[in-house]
Amino acid sequence: MLLTGQIKWSALMLAMVISSLCLALPLDKDRKALIRKEEMLQIGGKLLLTKQEELANEKLMALKNAEIAQAMKTSQFPPSMHFFRAKKLIEESKVFHVLKKMPKGAALHLHDFGILSVDWLVRNVTYRPHCYLCFTPRGNLQFKFADPAPPTPKPEDCSEWILLKKYRGQLQNVTEFDNSLLKNLTLVVDNPELAYSDQAIIWARFENIFITVAGLVHYAPVFREYFARGLQEFYEDNVQYLELRATLFPVYELNGKTHDKEWSLKTYQEVAQKFAKDHPDFIGARIIYSYHRRKNVTYIAESVQAAMKLRVKFPETMAGFDLVGQEDKGHSLWELKEALILPTTQGFDLPYFFHAGETDWQGTSIDENVLDALILNTTRIGHGFALSRHPVAKNISLNRDIPIEVCPISNQVLQLVSDLRNHPAASLMSSGHPMVISSDDPSIFGAKGLSYDFYEVFMGIAGVKADLRILKQLTLNSIKYSSLSADKKQTTKEIWQKKWDKFVHDLAEGKKL
Amino acid sequence: MLLTGQIKWSALMLAMVISSLCLALPLDKDRKALIRKEEMLQIGGKLLLTKQEELANEKLMALKNAEIAQAMKTSQFPPSMHFFRAKKLIEESKVFHVLKKMPKGAALHLHDFGILSVDWLVRNVTYRPHCYLCFTPRGNLQFKFADPAPPTPKPEDCSEWILLKKYRGQLQNVTEFDNSLLKNLTLVVDNPELAYSDQAIIWARFENIFITVAGLVHYAPVFREYFARGLQEFYEDNVQYLELRATLFPVYELNGKTHDKEWSLKTYQEVAQKFAKDHPDFIGARIIYSYHRRKNVTYIAESVQAAMKLRVKFPETMAGFDLVGQEDKGHSLWELKEALILPTTQGFDLPYFFHAGETDWQGTSIDENVLDALILNTTRIGHGFALSRHPVAKNISLNRDIPIEVCPISNQVLQLVSDLRNHPAASLMSSGHPMVISSDDPSIFGAKGLSYDFYEVFMGIAGVKADLRILKQLTLNSIKYSSLSADKKQTTKEIWQKKWDKFVHDLAEGKKL
Repeated sequence: MLLTGQIKWSALMLAMVISSLCLALPLDKDRKALIRKEEMLQIGGKLLLTKQEELANEKLMALKNAEIAQAMKTSQFPPSMHFFRAKKLIEESKVFHVLKKMPKGAALHLHDFGILSVDWLVRNVTYRPHCYLCFTPRGNLQFKFADPAPPTPKPEDCSEWILLKKYRGQLQNVTEFDNSLLKNLTLVVDNPELAYSDQAIIWARFENIFITVAGLVHYAPVFREYFARGLQEFYEDNVQYLELRATLFPVYELNGKTHDKEWSLKTYQEVAQKFAKDHPDFIGARIIYSYHRRKNVTYIAESVQAAMKLRVKFPETMAGFDLVGQEDKGHSLWELKEALILPTTQGFDLPYFFHAGETDWQGTSIDENVLDALILNTTRIGHGFALSRHPVAKNISLNRDIPIEVCPISNQVLQLVSDLRNHPAASLMSSGHPMVISSDDPSIFGAKGLSYDFYEVFMGIAGVKADLRILKQLTLNSIKYSSLSADKKQTTKEIWQKKWDKFVHDLAEGKKL
Repeated sequence: MLLTGQIKWSALMLAMVISSLCLALPLDKDRKALIRKEEMLQIGGKLLLTKQEELANEKLMALKNAEIAQAMKTSQFPPSMHFFRAKKLIEESKVFHVLKKMPKGAALHLHDFGILSVDWLVRNVTYRPHCYLCFTPRGNLQFKFADPAPPTPKPEDCSEWILLKKYRGQLQNVTEFDNSLLKNLTLVVDNPELAYSDQAIIWARFENIFITVAGLVHYAPVFREYFARGLQEFYEDNVQYLELRATLFPVYELNGKTHDKEWSLKTYQEVAQKFAKDHPDFIGARIIYSYHRRKNVTYIAESVQAAMKLRVKFPETMAGFDLVGQEDKGHSLWELKEALILPTTQGFDLPYFFHAGETDWQGTSIDENVLDALILNTTRIGHGFALSRHPVAKNISLNRDIPIEVCPISNQVLQLVSDLRNHPAASLMSSGHPMVISSDDPSIFGAKGLSYDFYEVFMGIAGVKADLRILKQLTLNSIKYSSLSADKKQTTKEIWQKKWDKFVHDLAEGKKL
């Protein structure tokens, strides 16, 4: 069937023609130059590695190539699988273990209550005295610490408060109960496609988890400790600095007294400063005050005003302002423009860090957020998932050097893309678009720190050939595009460089990382 | 919790500030200009519609917007669902019915045995005398017409031949059997994720279907009729011309005699010319001789030589050459370069229509095919799914005006992308990259003609705002980028224009399309 017996040219004649061509194909040089040009355009493509970095790179690429060859054979390639299924495979990856040890610079896109693995919340916080629990009519949990017991909620809001200590005392299997609590604090399930049939459902659940966690974390003693432990978790993942989107909702005391935004911000500042003092190889944290995009323009204007006041009062910690919540369901930035241009009209410098383009719905007013964020002078673009479909916005972002904050696992879990090789950051990366990698809400996705997201980028989004250069550049980007002052950036870079050199040395020498 | 009681600015003051800004936002004009610029960059964005086209567009967009609003409400959006599940919904769509009536110009990326719905093969062809069936050890079907009965295959190749007429005579439920035959001729299943756990599996099944179909279609009388009916199916879907990748494998007669490539090409030519004569509003078809990319370079060289000879002999019908089969498993174009530059070294004009970049594996030698296709002077790029990740290749393709052939349903079914809104053509479309839409193997995917793929593009890939302009431009593109001579293009365009005007008129007037 396959042309047998139909060969008209003798194999010998062809072999002669072919071998004569082999020697000097005029195209070979041009082709190499074009491929080299593409390699140079890729993020990090222009970096010159030191000798030791080259050695480290060889080691790293040997691991990467082996894992990719294996994945091609088994069709088990973590970046093309749902993270909930890929996680175990990732944890077995040698590349992942290298990435964990790599100093990653800054984590710039994180939310207040998604930075710390939830174990501690269940196994420690819910065991503290005066911890109450209720169930909403939709089956979600709410927590509260109070003494005396908090007033009974309206039945349409929540069940009666149950004192956890008492409740656990009546249970036969406390471990099972605690495990069920854990499940209520993350999105992780065995079969995500079945559990979350569409974006509306997973976003509703996602926002409910924040409400559940908030009941625990807004309790003043926990608030302080949660943040310190969150910093610790990122520190242990070799992150040197972080920026946190924080809603600054009222933090409460046992007696019901609540604290205002200033108190929260001050607490964040104190905790971060203490942590940095105790860990001289950690720079600290800054806060991006964030308000819900579903609120109307009057409330948004109020929050912008609040942000300006906070920025005056906490110049060291208060980095700027953002809007949070599901973009597709909230107001577009343009609908809120009267509130968002207040600082400009008042001649006040309030940096914006707008979420924009976290949507698959191209061509809606929400999808225009990527352009509007730039028009409204954003400092970075949160996600920017839609940016590659906006050639004008893309050019502005490139020319003004406004980076996107790419959070691969978040985008996958929240159903913007399934196979991460199809993440739109792939094409942006290949042309060197400014970007940083972050993890959004790692604890809620069952991840931790930045390493899982770096793994998805390095193995999946950036392609097979991507090497140490892209990792180095993305890490340098995270410092460059942070909101830190020039001085602090310099200090961070020095700290990072020292760690980087050690990391490279250990990798090059084949030391157990 | 949500800032109640914390509003420091009075609502009145803010309302005053806001209303004073509302009147003359300096940004409004700039923003509109930027959005307009993006709209102009989109494919078709620069087209000026006639008054009647504007009217038609309003009707079309009313239908589109209603369907998208409904999809957002129900989370049932066909382009983001697997086509096997979306098909029924698409068929209920009013937009789809408009698209079916739209004259679509040319279908430029199709394969020989995937152009005709399989019903006729089962309900007519397999009922013809002397039709035999056997089962391979892996459970695939093979057909053969023969008289006398064909020789018994080796057991490792296939079971004994079963005469279908006799076999059906013994069956209690022939309908059930025929339905099972139908299932063997397409990839369609209820649960594609379960049935095809990875790309290797679905590609193996896909190539097996071709072998199964080939047994029927390579029988000379069926070969002729299959092609004629295929043309009819595209004609009924309002396509004016098509180009077919054909493998030109030996066609056989009942007595076992086989025909050579020339015979096949001549038959294609005769059938197409007769069809065009009988249907003066149809231009005909041209053939792109295609060879399997897994073969070694000597065979490829032989097939290139054969292609050149065929082109001399059938200048009207023979359009050029391509390589087919799963890219990831085949040779890269560069590995085959000695064969592929033979025409150039011989000063012969053999147009190439290379499949390239039908892969998710960025950075492999296969992924370089998009660049190599261009270096090897391809006329179009088949799929070009990987092009957006290759900035240099993308620029060459743009500057040389080499289009990609986008086949959305094929790419989804063959597991390159799940939600078609994430198809990389979206970003290319938004910047006006040259492209045409085609359907690859519609019958094997359970589709038909071009309309389903146009639906996926219009509703999904091109975004919510995409309107009649993009449809018109894509249709015009299909004529412009065809392999037809300038004269023939002109004729095709005239035929298309007449149909387009009627289509637009009917749509504008609200006539039942």
